[in-house]
Amino acid sequence: MKIIKDSVHDHISVDGVARDLVDTPAVQRLRRIAQLGTVSLVYPSANHTRFEHSLGVYHIACEALDHLGVEGKQADRVQAAAMLHDVGHGPFSHNLESLTYRRTGRYHDDVHTLLADGEVGDVLREHDIDPNAVADLVAGDGRFGQLVSGELDVDRMDYLVRDAHHTGVPYGTIDHGRLIRELVFVDDELVLDEGNVQSAESLLVARALMNPTVYSHSVARISKAMLRRASERLLESPETNVDAATLQRMDDYDLIVALRSCESTQEFTRRYDQRDLFKRAVWAEIDDVPGGVIEAEHREIREFEQDIAARADIDPSNVILDVPSRPSMTESSSRVMVNGDIRRLEQQSPLVEALRAAQYSQWRLGVYSPPELQEQVGHAAVDVLGLDIDGALVSEVRDGVDTTLDQFAE
Amino acid sequence: MKIIKDSVHDHISVDGVARDLVDTPAVQRLRRIAQLGTVSLVYPSANHTRFEHSLGVYHIACEALDHLGVEGKQADRVQAAAMLHDVGHGPFSHNLESLTYRRTGRYHDDVHTLLADGEVGDVLREHDIDPNAVADLVAGDGRFGQLVSGELDVDRMDYLVRDAHHTGVPYGTIDHGRLIRELVFVDDELVLDEGNVQSAESLLVARALMNPTVYSHSVARISKAMLRRASERLLESPETNVDAATLQRMDDYDLIVALRSCESTQEFTRRYDQRDLFKRAVWAEIDDVPGGVIEAEHREIREFEQDIAARADIDPSNVILDVPSRPSMTESSSRVMVNGDIRRLEQQSPLVEALRAAQYSQWRLGVYSPPELQEQVGHAAVDVLGLDIDGALVSEVRDGVDTTLDQFAE
Amino acid sequence: MKIIKDSVHDHISVDGVARDLVDTPAVQRLRRIAQLGTVSLVYPSANHTRFEHSLGVYHIACEALDHLGVEGKQADRVQAAAMLHDVGHGPFSHNLESLTYRRTGRYHDDVHTLLADGEVGDVLREHDIDPNAVADLVAGDGRFGQLVSGELDVDRMDYLVRDAHHTGVPYGTIDHGRLIRELVFVDDELVLDEGNVQSAESLLVARALMNPTVYSHSVARISKAMLRRASERLLESPETNVDAATLQRMDDYDLIVALRSCESTQEFTRRYDQRDLFKRAVWAEIDDVPGGVIEAEHREIREFEQDIAARADIDPSNVILDVPSRPSMTESSSRVMVNGDIRRLEQQSPLVEALRAAQYSQWRLGVYSPPELQEQVGHAAVDVLGLDIDGALVSEVRDGVDTTLDQFAE
Amino acid sequence: MKIIKDSVHDHISVDGVARDLVDTPAVQRLRRIAQLGTVSLVYPSANHTRFEHSLGVYHIACEALDHLGVEGKQADRVQAAAMLHDVGHGPFSHNLESLTYRRTGRYHDDVHTLLADGEVGDVLREHDIDPNAVADLVAGDGRFGQLVSGELDVDRMDYLVRDAHHTGVPYGTIDHGRLIRELVFVDDELVLDEGNVQSAESLLVARALMNPTVYSHSVARISKAMLRRASERLLESPETNVDAATLQRMDDYDLIVALRSCESTQEFTRRYDQRDLFKRAVWAEIDDVPGGVIEAEHREIREFEQDIAARADIDPSNVILDVPSRPSMTESSSRVMVNGDIRRLEQQSPLVEALRAAQYSQWRLGVYSPPELQEQVGHAAVDVLGLDIDGALVSEVRDGVDTTLDQFAE
Repeated sequence: MKIIKDSVHDHISVDGVARDLVDTPAVQRLRRIAQLGTVSLVYPSANHTRFEHSLGVYHIACEALDHLGVEGKQADRVQAAAMLHDVGHGPFSHNLESLTYRRTGRYHDDVHTLLADGEVGDVLREHDIDPNAVADLVAGDGRFGQLVSGELDVDRMDYLVRDAHHTGVPYGTIDHGRLIRELVFVDDELVLDEGNVQSAESLLVARALMNPTVYSHSVARISKAMLRRASERLLESPETNVDAATLQRMDDYDLIVALRSCESTQEFTRRYDQRDLFKRAVWAEIDDVPGGVIEAEHREIREFEQDIAARADIDPSNVILDVPSRPSMTESSSRVMVNGDIRRLEQQSPLVEALRAAQYSQWRLGVYSPPELQEQVGHAAVDVLGLDIDGALVSEVRDGVDTTLDQFAE
Repeated sequence: MKIIKDSVHDHISVDGVARDLVDTPAVQRLRRIAQLGTVSLVYPSANHTRFEHSLGVYHIACEALDHLGVEGKQADRVQAAAMLHDVGHGPFSHNLESLTYRRTGRYHDDVHTLLADGEVGDVLREHDIDPNAVADLVAGDGRFGQLVSGELDVDRMDYLVRDAHHTGVPYGTIDHGRLIRELVFVDDELVLDEGNVQSAESLLVARALMNPTVYSHSVARISKAMLRRASERLLESPETNVDAATLQRMDDYDLIVALRSCESTQEFTRRYDQRDLFKRAVWAEIDDVPGGVIEAEHREIREFEQDIAARADIDPSNVILDVPSRPSMTESSSRVMVNGDIRRLEQQSPLVEALRAAQYSQWRLGVYSPPELQEQVGHAAVDVLGLDIDGALVSEVRDGVDTTLDQFAE
Repeated sequence: MKIIKDSVHDHISVDGVARDLVDTPAVQRLRRIAQLGTVSLVYPSANHTRFEHSLGVYHIACEALDHLGVEGKQADRVQAAAMLHDVGHGPFSHNLESLTYRRTGRYHDDVHTLLADGEVGDVLREHDIDPNAVADLVAGDGRFGQLVSGELDVDRMDYLVRDAHHTGVPYGTIDHGRLIRELVFVDDELVLDEGNVQSAESLLVARALMNPTVYSHSVARISKAMLRRASERLLESPETNVDAATLQRMDDYDLIVALRSCESTQEFTRRYDQRDLFKRAVWAEIDDVPGGVIEAEHREIREFEQDIAARADIDPSNVILDVPSRPSMTESSSRVMVNGDIRRLEQQSPLVEALRAAQYSQWRLGVYSPPELQEQVGHAAVDVLGLDIDGALVSEVRDGVDTTLDQFAE
Repeated sequence: MKIIKDSVHDHISVDGVARDLVDTPAVQRLRRIAQLGTVSLVYPSANHTRFEHSLGVYHIACEALDHLGVEGKQADRVQAAAMLHDVGHGPFSHNLESLTYRRTGRYHDDVHTLLADGEVGDVLREHDIDPNAVADLVAGDGRFGQLVSGELDVDRMDYLVRDAHHTGVPYGTIDHGRLIRELVFVDDELVLDEGNVQSAESLLVARALMNPTVYSHSVARISKAMLRRASERLLESPETNVDAATLQRMDDYDLIVALRSCESTQEFTRRYDQRDLFKRAVWAEIDDVPGGVIEAEHREIREFEQDIAARADIDPSNVILDVPSRPSMTESSSRVMVNGDIRRLEQQSPLVEALRAAQYSQWRLGVYSPPELQEQVGHAAVDVLGLDIDGALVSEVRDGVDTTLDQFAE
């Protein structure tokens, strides 16, 4: 048994198959992938990694299994899945997902292949565990898949607390010990036991408060969009031989140095390294954006950018259009026992609808440009995208500040 | 300057008039008044006092004054008000307010008198401060009264964090540094500056999550109701000479020992001391309770109790009827700048309505009795109060558990 | 199983015999005994109680038993002992020990009697546990007695962390998880396993830093001495019927109110309630104090006080002589495995001798008096006690400040 | 003014020259230099950077200046020095210092040049600050240099707390607020005011406990030695054009990717990336090592390694000899006022000598090799180095474990 000291859970005991998995290259690689990608440009202390998060998820999974009385092979599989749930992530965590998805058709590396191959597969088989069964759990399939990847999963119980601890933002402070202890299986569904509507709400609220303050902070979004754009150029560059699959297997170190080395992405890297970022030329609410723009596919987005650049009479590399997907809330469908029935939280709690509305009102389309081009890009974007925005764009940007802790931002 | 070490704010520097006020009997008395009254019967670590809370409120007030650029006499008055805002509290903080209110016509001791008299008045006058001006601030009057007692006051910024720290419940963790820094005066109204809708929401949410988990936990409510009832008997007892004004000036030590000494309250004290509390015979939702019961005055409540006891054929001392006032949310009217206008939070945030609904759904009428009489008191109460409850009462009580961390509870 | 939320250990699961013991009057009484007695006059947040500490000790004991693989009756006995280890404490924890010792010949109530009688005895016997066996463990006897009361006991692992948490003083932050996991039995001796010299040292250091800053802070010592003196007068007062055995069974509330009620202790209580304490007239290092004074028994101390008062020509109630016992360090004899041998820490670590010397240099004899009599009491005391102090006493007092965080102190 | 959220100090306000310095490339580069180098291989949460540390040092410097009443240009210079004190660091912080020192004759980049050149110099001059004056402060020169780099500097006040926070090891928890408030200048010397012997000791103790547990943990030392060796090969490789000055300007990302790219360091990088580290073949106490070995210069160390490899009949790349310099304790000479005199802590506190002895007893010479060569390398090293070690080397290694929390270690 290994004991590992963790800044969130104090001591984590790693045992059995998990102990052997920790030493595989696929898990050790997670040491070099920042949990929150570019968020550290907003919160400088947020340098925690997917590695310590994976240990934390494993730790909470062990507590949950213990509480649910699950032992033997089933427990081994869940523990392995908890430890391995992030090995498919590319560099900068979720930041490049959409990019590699477009090119490989997958958000992450194919988990079934990843877990069956290499040292991970060897370790699993040595412990008499079927890699496919573990991959199914990671995908959220089956009874115990809910525990690894679902509305009440151990992944979110770790990351909310860990991200709060490392950013210094206090909103993610859920009571994970309480949540774990109230988990029960009813008819193969993982639910919170009677008396836990509020516990379920607290999970939802934590997520809803962390979203605009941390995960979707405007500066995090800008830097992420810049990173995505630069990585796209890297893939397109004739200079290099990087394809999407290779990029997906990089760690943060590889990617940053590759971007520094490639001529067409050097200016980005200078900006990223020096935190000399693009600014918001437009920051528009969902009701002011035509449906066609919201639903636009990647190719169309690139065309919009070129049209905006043309109208503003500048080089297209100076314009980034960032259109988030429509708001959703996984946690809203978490299940709670109420008077003997299983109910979805959204059926039970008025908070769900309110938080959904809040999220809707916080949605923003962003157009980003170098500071000195902000005004002209802003006007051009309003015209090209058909945004319903009157008056000075600068004041619009001011409004945009309104749900975020705007550190370093302007 | 005194430096005081605090478990929440680390070091608190106490200076000027505040330094002299700390040493007055009225402030030192707060060392023996528990901040959360009977809540320590649910959360054993919640033994913090009004004294340390008052220091904390003073500390945050200093930060706010510093941020707002307020100096000189005005700052002195606010600092004095922060330090003194709780000196009017009776024993067990808010627990006995309604009782002393009925007898004295005041929730607290009259603050104007309190601050003008005795050493506190002397200290204020020595520092050339009008006690009445400080009392006005404590009452929330005037421009700076909003800072001492209003929707965005320094009182709540301290207690949410402090109560979370000492109970161990993580929900009160607001970012008070952020809130303070965003305060501005606009047309004499204290508001949060542009971009702080979410900050205001976080305050509201913290309060909404702490309410059922801590402040209105069923066991806290039961013990508080028992304490109130016993204190009422103490006032009525021919044995003792305690009147409402005397009781109001007691500290927790005085009251508990007085209750132990008085024959008609000894059984209560035994129960309190040994945590051998009454249980819920009824725990009814607001929609199942006739309006007449909800609006009942104290005299009527006592009559209901006697009727219930008569119907159940037991002594009236075995029945406590606990009817909370209708839900309200002070924080919902806090003000935030949005696009240059002052808006009340409830105009701006869908969360306000949702939390109001949540609070409404958590409201419960309680009827409490010794465990062995639970069933018969329950049936009698349903009849006497005309509650709309079918089926077994025991299961109703089960439902009632549903929003609380039920420590020690049954 | 009960789950209790604790501000230090988060969730504590209370099960088996411990669950029934929690509800006994003897354990519930600990809710009203402050863990650190008068230390809250120095650190206002230090209002934690023997009750939450007992839960914490039980919690760590469970972890240790789990680690050591101890189950069944033996584990039950140790858990009971952990929960009960403080039930013999009088009001204000250790503050009055010497007083009741002189009158009853015992530091605490006789634990064997306490545990055999009343509800505690009933609960133990219901669980088929011999109260005497538990009392032996509390006294530190036998193999497992070392775990309950010894150099490496679970008591000190809880209180160091808890006292640090509540005072806000960071020095008690040991790694109790690490210590527990390294405990082993070797030849019936409880020792720390190979590689833990430094872990043992950290325990010693934490204690050595907490001592002058918290436990022996001059203001805590003065208020404790005043409390002891007042309690002595209470016992001697013809007005009341309080004997030492009765006092020993009081809680903090009883004692304070009794002192307020008794005419000859009212002045003390006013001073205590208003924190209007005596000051140091003398604060002398060990080398400047004649051996006869250091070894003086209680009767002689009282005579010294009267002689000092006579020489200063004032009433004896204005003089308190406070002579601590010679420094000692329990933790210095904790045992650690080094290269396969059991060694006492003092044989292994140069820190032990250094900390012993530091403690020796921090020892102070105190003579306390009302501030206005400080000078004349000081001179009288130097003469009467034969102290080797030259020059102005005021400057001596200044020196005395030198190892303490002197909050509120002058 | 910028407000930055920090996980240790909560909110840090950055103003004046510091605000402009934050945005320079030299300071932003520190985001990509791990504060503790390879320590994250022992404590996976220790991913904090020199950037957040620099902000923290700046924050504490502001508090100290405020306390000392220093304003204007002098304050600006100190604040600039605090923010810039680490810009000269190479990749992996201190890990490669000795390497670049040998090649450039400097531990860090020349600070005077660094601060005068580029954007940093521009910013300083814009604020009318002489870069040389700032560089002098960074070097610890002059009255205020003591505050930036001395026994009582703000650097150590931040890193002890920050390293404790991020590793999860509790020993670094000093009370920096207390230390700052007790700083005074006496005759141009920075000293702790009367009554602070124990505060000074706590700083010393924190450092003494963090050393073996964190900074000199055997696994941190092994990985650091491997990193140093690989970097040396990188510099020697004909394949690449990296010279010492270039290496010194890299960040962690650059260096790791450069090591991955260079053929002669690929095996190292695989080991580092996969945490498949060398093990200790020898771990010898200072008294068992001939003076000639302890004093050996770099060239001799390399020769010893070759001799060991030759004797063991293996390739020299399989042997690393790691000889730390003789123990020293900067904090031992910190100054404290005692009875009106300035005294060095070592003159006053018996702890200094004891901690020095402890440090001496913890000193270890290490010889590292791949696990499968451990035994033969061990025997060869004992012979070649003339170590005074009898018996099985494996058991010697066991002993060596004895002062460290041996996470992940074997």
